[in-house]
Amino acid sequence: MPAPTEFLTYIDAKADIFIKRLADAVAIPSISGDAKHRNDVFAMADWLNAQLRQLGVDTQLVDLGRHKMDGEDLPLPPAILGRIGSDSSKKTVLIYGHFDVQPANKSDGWDTDPFTLVVDEKTGRLIGRGSSDDKGPILGWLNVLQYHHESKLPLPVNLVFCFEGMEESGSEGLDDLVRRESKKGGCFEGVDCVCISDNYWLNTRTPALTYGLRGLSYYKVTISGPARDLHSGVFGRTVHEPMTDLISLLSTLVSPQGDILIKGVDDMVPRADEEEKAIYAGLDYSIADVEESAGASIALSADKVSVLMGRMREPSLSIHGIEGAFSGAGAKTVIPAKVSGKFSIRLVPPQTPEAIDPLVIDHLEKAFAKLGSKNKLSVENLHGGKPWVADHRHWNFEAAKKATKAVYKQDPDLTREGGSIPVTLTFAESLGVNVLLLPMGRGDDGAHSTNEKLDRSNFIEGSKLLGTYLYELADIAKN
Amino acid sequence: MPAPTEFLTYIDAKADIFIKRLADAVAIPSISGDAKHRNDVFAMADWLNAQLRQLGVDTQLVDLGRHKMDGEDLPLPPAILGRIGSDSSKKTVLIYGHFDVQPANKSDGWDTDPFTLVVDEKTGRLIGRGSSDDKGPILGWLNVLQYHHESKLPLPVNLVFCFEGMEESGSEGLDDLVRRESKKGGCFEGVDCVCISDNYWLNTRTPALTYGLRGLSYYKVTISGPARDLHSGVFGRTVHEPMTDLISLLSTLVSPQGDILIKGVDDMVPRADEEEKAIYAGLDYSIADVEESAGASIALSADKVSVLMGRMREPSLSIHGIEGAFSGAGAKTVIPAKVSGKFSIRLVPPQTPEAIDPLVIDHLEKAFAKLGSKNKLSVENLHGGKPWVADHRHWNFEAAKKATKAVYKQDPDLTREGGSIPVTLTFAESLGVNVLLLPMGRGDDGAHSTNEKLDRSNFIEGSKLLGTYLYELADIAKN
Ligand SMILES: [Zn+2]
Ligand SMILES: [Zn+2]
Ligand SMILES: [Zn+2]
Ligand SMILES: [Zn+2]
Repeated sequence: MPAPTEFLTYIDAKADIFIKRLADAVAIPSISGDAKHRNDVFAMADWLNAQLRQLGVDTQLVDLGRHKMDGEDLPLPPAILGRIGSDSSKKTVLIYGHFDVQPANKSDGWDTDPFTLVVDEKTGRLIGRGSSDDKGPILGWLNVLQYHHESKLPLPVNLVFCFEGMEESGSEGLDDLVRRESKKGGCFEGVDCVCISDNYWLNTRTPALTYGLRGLSYYKVTISGPARDLHSGVFGRTVHEPMTDLISLLSTLVSPQGDILIKGVDDMVPRADEEEKAIYAGLDYSIADVEESAGASIALSADKVSVLMGRMREPSLSIHGIEGAFSGAGAKTVIPAKVSGKFSIRLVPPQTPEAIDPLVIDHLEKAFAKLGSKNKLSVENLHGGKPWVADHRHWNFEAAKKATKAVYKQDPDLTREGGSIPVTLTFAESLGVNVLLLPMGRGDDGAHSTNEKLDRSNFIEGSKLLGTYLYELADIAKN
Repeated sequence: MPAPTEFLTYIDAKADIFIKRLADAVAIPSISGDAKHRNDVFAMADWLNAQLRQLGVDTQLVDLGRHKMDGEDLPLPPAILGRIGSDSSKKTVLIYGHFDVQPANKSDGWDTDPFTLVVDEKTGRLIGRGSSDDKGPILGWLNVLQYHHESKLPLPVNLVFCFEGMEESGSEGLDDLVRRESKKGGCFEGVDCVCISDNYWLNTRTPALTYGLRGLSYYKVTISGPARDLHSGVFGRTVHEPMTDLISLLSTLVSPQGDILIKGVDDMVPRADEEEKAIYAGLDYSIADVEESAGASIALSADKVSVLMGRMREPSLSIHGIEGAFSGAGAKTVIPAKVSGKFSIRLVPPQTPEAIDPLVIDHLEKAFAKLGSKNKLSVENLHGGKPWVADHRHWNFEAAKKATKAVYKQDPDLTREGGSIPVTLTFAESLGVNVLLLPMGRGDDGAHSTNEKLDRSNFIEGSKLLGTYLYELADIAKN
């Protein structure tokens, strides 16, 4: 049972109206990370809630309490929980999305006002903050609902919605909600699979399905010695300098080729077999794409499979910076008294922060002991999250593959992402069902950057894809 | 010919009046590094000029032109050149001092208003910005002048004064002035030796004469790669990360024990012979003093001579910080696109920035080549200055030793300082005469810190010392 032709025609016919609705959504500057815009996140929740109700979804706004941000005590924006359909003969799909956005100011370098959706007729781009992350995908679902509402056709599956307004600020309050609603009697009871549309294709050409995300373990390693900053003229070559020690420690973590030098970390990950390597070889993504995206010819290898596996299925260690040392322009001759190196390790299964922590701490303590310094070492794990990998042979993925083939006439790239979307793991673990990441936008959408855009064709074909996916799911469920 | 007893008695008798004059000087917030206070530096020049004239010194204010500071075009405060006495049978001594001060705000942590001199009767401290650096010493000279002026006694030597108002801001304009006035026909023609009172005893107990200063060579090593900052999730283990490369380079510069690992740098300095080591062994300064001053037990060695030589007669390398990397609190997962490490090398003879530069650049280039990175390296020398060492057996020093013994009943510590006072070298090179650093204040005066102070006894005995030094100079000249 592919999607009805009428559905596809309807989406095309209504394209301009859908874009107008996207413009309405973008016009609400629902920046969760800026206290001044907290009211706008609430307004956005109300707007979306009204849209869902109008299209026949039974919704509730769930109060998530209050939180502190930048010293201010603020009410958290509500989550929207919704349901349409409760036919026990149908699959039940949980749909996640977020209606908050990243900050954006014209002065950041935007060519146009970030909160006025600009339709660039020449390039087909819909430009505005949230167009791709994540208002476009949420509105894709509204488009699907609208067809069924207007044509009075039942949806092929039952849908449960979970939309939040704090994703760009750590999804505060969401984990608890998901765990609570996943229990017996909760709103998510009976959910068969999850679909999250909040990431991107690898490139600008080929649709993708994403079945893995790396986890993270973020460390702060602090060396302290003198009671205060010292003058390098007076104390140079007299005392153990914390920066010398810290730089030495940081230099033992990762090779310039990206190999993690902390004993046991790389070894924890099973090598890829030929079948897995074939997935990477087959991806429509080249070293040239990686280097174009980085803006320089700096790929770690000339071998595509190795570069893509480095991003998608290997752990990585990045040194982000140093807190407490001189960081300005110019030339200051200080010996900083206390310096903290910040580095993080991206994790892949079976790594977890809990398994990695002792290796990191042991490594740093041993390396520090070797220095023979009289300064003091401390190591903190600032935060972390487990990696996630789903079974991409699951019927949830099979439905998405069929839908992609039907809408785009191409097989999707099967990707794993290097970054993290923590809620993915929360859904997977709380519900114990397969989670699919089904991106709508392209790799160059610039989600957290200036001039964020969603291509018109990705919005329209993407809406078709979401609807078609539901029909394919229902089809598979029957067999 | 020791100083007349009347001189010593006079200084004691006038102590309160002298302290009142120091309070007047401290009350003028002559902060050269703050454009808002530029008028106060001018006011301070006028105040000091009037004092000198009143005491019989023939002075001129020399316009040093304009400069740019923090984007503002400002007039430089004038230098004060002065002369008293031109008896060709006497030695001519050039006296240097600076009448500008470091910034100070009550909110920085001062216990009292920094520009109101507080006389703490219990501790004998004269607390206020500039009390020790460098208004106290300048006023010491005024005290000496006042005795001779009031008692109508000729000074035992001719004095030439060079007082500036930009020392705390790079002595802008001074080098040119000194070179110009040192030429035939200039104000400094015929100068036999120089005395600078703008540094400190090693400790709080023993007067010191300083015969050496380290030079400096400050480097910025930059690694650039990506066109913009990258997300470590998306790019970790995919591209060469500038921070990884930079940390690796910085780790090759200096050992945790302070040895400079750049080939040829340490080797350039001749080892100390037993006679020189004896100077350090004899200094009234212990490892406990070093560690108390640093606020922690972090001395590089348990051997006093080695620790003191590390500060005074060995080069040192300190890593100050990194520009361009994440330096705030918290956990940011960025891969910075371009990062610059800042480090400096304190130089001792025969090292010069010119001799060190090629070694540093060669070292960094070779170390970078070994990394096999596709990022780009660049190395800059941000600024530098040569070291200075004077002959401490010269009659200029002998006079100061005798004066110290006469006033303090102790032999002075013969010290070399780890830091730089660039004007010292300018005088030494332009005039080709011996330069003596004759400190008035103690090691704990906190010159650039909060609650700067000068001990009452250092101000009063120090004034006696300056006068006695002149008499001892005259005495030596006769023999
Ligand atoms: Zn998002
Ligand atoms: Zn986002
Ligand atoms: Zn000074
Ligand atoms: Zn100073």
